[in-house]
Amino acid sequence: MSWNPALEAAFHPKVVAVVGVSADAKRNGPPAIGGANFIRSYEQLGFQGRIYPVNPKATEILGLKAYPNVSSIPEPVDLVIVSVPAHAVPGVLEDCIAANARNVHVFTAGFEETGEEEAKELGCRVRQIALRGGLCLIGPNCMGPYVPQAGIGSFDRVPRESGPVSFISQSGGHCNWFCHHGPDHGFRFSKVISFGNAYVLDSTDYLEYLAVDPETTVICMYLEGVKDGGKLLKQVREINRVKPVILWKGGLTESGSRAVASHTGSLAGQEAIWRGFFAQTGAVRVFSLEEMAESAMTFLHVRPPQGKRVAVLGAGGGSSVASADVCVYEGLEVPTLTQETQAELKKFIPLAGASIKNPLDTGLLFRNVSLLEREMELVAADPLIDMLIVMPHLDMGGRAGANQTDRLVSQLCDFSRDNPYGKPTVIVFQSFANDPWEVELRARLEVELPNKGVAVYSSLSGACRALARLFEYHRFQGELAAESRR
Amino acid sequence: MSWNPALEAAFHPKVVAVVGVSADAKRNGPPAIGGANFIRSYEQLGFQGRIYPVNPKATEILGLKAYPNVSSIPEPVDLVIVSVPAHAVPGVLEDCIAANARNVHVFTAGFEETGEEEAKELGCRVRQIALRGGLCLIGPNCMGPYVPQAGIGSFDRVPRESGPVSFISQSGGHCNWFCHHGPDHGFRFSKVISFGNAYVLDSTDYLEYLAVDPETTVICMYLEGVKDGGKLLKQVREINRVKPVILWKGGLTESGSRAVASHTGSLAGQEAIWRGFFAQTGAVRVFSLEEMAESAMTFLHVRPPQGKRVAVLGAGGGSSVASADVCVYEGLEVPTLTQETQAELKKFIPLAGASIKNPLDTGLLFRNVSLLEREMELVAADPLIDMLIVMPHLDMGGRAGANQTDRLVSQLCDFSRDNPYGKPTVIVFQSFANDPWEVELRARLEVELPNKGVAVYSSLSGACRALARLFEYHRFQGELAAESRR
Repeated sequence: MSWNPALEAAFHPKVVAVVGVSADAKRNGPPAIGGANFIRSYEQLGFQGRIYPVNPKATEILGLKAYPNVSSIPEPVDLVIVSVPAHAVPGVLEDCIAANARNVHVFTAGFEETGEEEAKELGCRVRQIALRGGLCLIGPNCMGPYVPQAGIGSFDRVPRESGPVSFISQSGGHCNWFCHHGPDHGFRFSKVISFGNAYVLDSTDYLEYLAVDPETTVICMYLEGVKDGGKLLKQVREINRVKPVILWKGGLTESGSRAVASHTGSLAGQEAIWRGFFAQTGAVRVFSLEEMAESAMTFLHVRPPQGKRVAVLGAGGGSSVASADVCVYEGLEVPTLTQETQAELKKFIPLAGASIKNPLDTGLLFRNVSLLEREMELVAADPLIDMLIVMPHLDMGGRAGANQTDRLVSQLCDFSRDNPYGKPTVIVFQSFANDPWEVELRARLEVELPNKGVAVYSSLSGACRALARLFEYHRFQGELAAESRR
Repeated sequence: MSWNPALEAAFHPKVVAVVGVSADAKRNGPPAIGGANFIRSYEQLGFQGRIYPVNPKATEILGLKAYPNVSSIPEPVDLVIVSVPAHAVPGVLEDCIAANARNVHVFTAGFEETGEEEAKELGCRVRQIALRGGLCLIGPNCMGPYVPQAGIGSFDRVPRESGPVSFISQSGGHCNWFCHHGPDHGFRFSKVISFGNAYVLDSTDYLEYLAVDPETTVICMYLEGVKDGGKLLKQVREINRVKPVILWKGGLTESGSRAVASHTGSLAGQEAIWRGFFAQTGAVRVFSLEEMAESAMTFLHVRPPQGKRVAVLGAGGGSSVASADVCVYEGLEVPTLTQETQAELKKFIPLAGASIKNPLDTGLLFRNVSLLEREMELVAADPLIDMLIVMPHLDMGGRAGANQTDRLVSQLCDFSRDNPYGKPTVIVFQSFANDPWEVELRARLEVELPNKGVAVYSSLSGACRALARLFEYHRFQGELAAESRR
């Protein structure tokens, strides 16, 4: 795969022009619409290069020297952000070509996705100009790149720190959500690229870049349409061997496909084709942003399980029944523990109101940290078990139990990060009530723990789904490797 | 169906005996285990009758006069709660029979659900004694009844107010969860019955009672096993015509069925049989407590839709695509709005970066309450649309937008409760970020609004699922009515 030097410049620009910034833009106040928004967010992200607002009616905007067009900027421009009304985009692109500014992110929307004839024709013209001028065009109708290392991006209050995950998405809203919720799942970003209608650069171009990007180890994608399906398939199959590719394909129902047309003007494709795509590439399939975030967290924080057999350590008989059903629905197995393990557990767990078969209904142990540790050790040592899901209740004696809760949590973290049996151990917190203190505690732990490298899921089904996918990924890669050795 | 006078007394007792209360029980401190717990929670619920602790080694417990056994209590006992070790249960039941105390709730666990031979035999004895003595036995291995109107119940901090929902459940943990989360979904309870291993009284007995209970309008059930499937089917089909029956059947996977055996010692049955059950009864099928709570809320707060065609009013193109897919996956239809509606919407909604086809991607309207109202009116008037799901973002200008948010929310509530087109309108809040103020606001609104009669769901899929079920329920009943007219 090739390295794209244009994208390299676009993702690490030193000089940025923003075309279409209101002459009276302000730094404070409610979120700005249009060009000023980019300047504000670049500054928030600590961008160290130079920014030139472009506006024919101003000489200074936001304290920055403004120019009437890109051509008049006195130095080479690494990235142009276009935020003008749709009808003015062709003129701006001609200006970029004249200025030899090749990397252009077109934020402007209002092309074929509107369904209006005139707008479609305008879109065609934009595409033609870009192709003729050899522009490396991102968009239109998109939020462009977020590269924290380079201090660029267009979302409010996203982290300045970098991380190992990259995200390629035809939806800017999805990027916005993911950039905020990634850190809540314990990861940050290398490159996030919102690329909208994909007139020139398509997912495959960004993928080519990320494949060899040393800062990226996990690749997430949200796609509505694809120009070259064969190329994407080959690429994903190849990249997925080294960097897990987690992909959400949107618009696979008829209504969804219609929404795709109204969003990025793409052709959505059909479910059967995409099923084949996943079967052949081994890419990790998800169906929502939440799943994508939990899946990325899993690839980053959970060691690969050796099989699909899970032990669930929970509380409550009804909850055990539900857990068993959910695990199986989501593709895992819930074997009965060996007689030996059960015999050991019986030594310190009274059977009335409990169960030690699997799921383990041993809620009282969440109030007794050392017995819980003994239980986890025994279960992890069981040869029939490949991974553990621990489902603690946090309402152990109300607020008064806070100290106990701290001990419980720190012990769970220790066991999850490093247990002598090397068995993946993840957490799903449970609660009976919605007490504010408990809701708050749970919400806090669900962010804190992933940031300490411990996978916590908001639901058991989410945990099972992510673990099943992690297992399937490694199984697929194992088979692929075996095949290539033959 | 017959009225069960024994259950009537058990659910509205004047005199309660609690067998097995520790002599040194305290009113304060951490949650008590065993009998004292019942006395504490009855008192919390404002029980107005008399409570007699039973303990051969004490004359007073918790300031209440204690007796050595039930027979020695000087007045007729309406309900006996048994909280002694399993081996002592037969003796207590003999005592109850001698005292002519027919209504007995056995909290004690440790019978066939343990899988131990000895415990199984003990269970058989308990059952035989109860049957021979004509006891109206609830349990064993259960939390018994919660009847706020009568001031009885065994869960901590559940509402003292009554409501129209009843819940029959083989899991006490599920009852606990549901009693706390019901009020968060805007409803409270008439009778909640945790009935565990069902030695004598089974789901069908409780159902018989609730069928004619004037305080109950919606019946929820969690079942692990059933003794008389034919009877249940006939009953549910009949009751469901008048009072929606929402049913979660646990343990339908092999592992789940094993967990059922470990929990209440029941036989779980098979998926195919239960599919037939739902097809024949028209009962509302759910797969989790969350779904049950959202479904009950829907039956209580949402008027029946005339069809399955939904309009989604949201923000973001990617979100629209996902919404369309989710609606269809969950059984709804997402038709394009009529040309007339679109033409009207176009008059005040610019198309660049938006869509007015359906899903509507018109996020800016959440910042403009009067335009949003116009949009909702037009969409609700569209003859192709049966119901509306509105998905507002709450992060409208940060905290500063609080005033605007208040207006938005109150307008949504007004429209949802009473729009001139009579179209069901429900809400799913969205947010890009996890800002604490927004998380808190959303959590608060998700409780407040249902308590004002407006249905709010935690996810779009949850909303669709509940609405699809509401529609299906009314379609089924309509067909049934048509059939019986023929």
